[in-house]
Amino acid sequence: MEKYNFFASLPDDLTLEAFEPLVETGGVLIERIVSKAHRTPEGQWYDQDRNEWVMVLKGEASLVFEGAEVVHLKMGDHLNIPAHCRHRVSWTSEQEETLWLAVHY
Amino acid sequence: MEKYNFFASLPDDLTLEAFEPLVETGGVLIERIVSKAHRTPEGQWYDQDRNEWVMVLKGEASLVFEGAEVVHLKMGDHLNIPAHCRHRVSWTSEQEETLWLAVHY
Repeated sequence: MEKYNFFASLPDDLTLEAFEPLVETGGVLIERIVSKAHRTPEGQWYDQDRNEWVMVLKGEASLVFEGAEVVHLKMGDHLNIPAHCRHRVSWTSEQEETLWLAVHY
Repeated sequence: MEKYNFFASLPDDLTLEAFEPLVETGGVLIERIVSKAHRTPEGQWYDQDRNEWVMVLKGEASLVFEGAEVVHLKMGDHLNIPAHCRHRVSWTSEQEETLWLAVHY
């Protein structure tokens, strides 16, 4: 049974945010996202067909929900984003990589 | 948007292993499991109808797969257990809580 480590093998090149599938089936995608100073471009929103449960496991980030508050996320903070709940990443740490675990379901 | 912390609010009473759903839908269960010196009783195996992706985020544990090797898991180690792949937890740390994140899908 092959094991992997979530905190290992970070991409050398983070010019673009890295989206790395860990498990992908018809219905469910589990992925690691590696950000460093990335944010969703101004005026753009994620508007997803699936629910997304997301947790920050390293670094820090801020999420904005349309018409609502900013949510600041640190190590271990998690939340559940219902499908079509419009949101954007307004900030991720410039000092270190931010690692997200996302489950799209 | 309500956030929670994965490492917070550990149960006071760990006489029994704690299984705590974070997200539960028809098809997918995301849960936190808190173990401390717990192991699957000798001779018993998990034999699950769904796949399970699991990661250790605190503590340490060992998993045994029927007819195969023991896999030792530390912080950040994750693996994917196919449905009906028989396995047991042969050891979890006595020194501290072991926190598992499990996605059943």
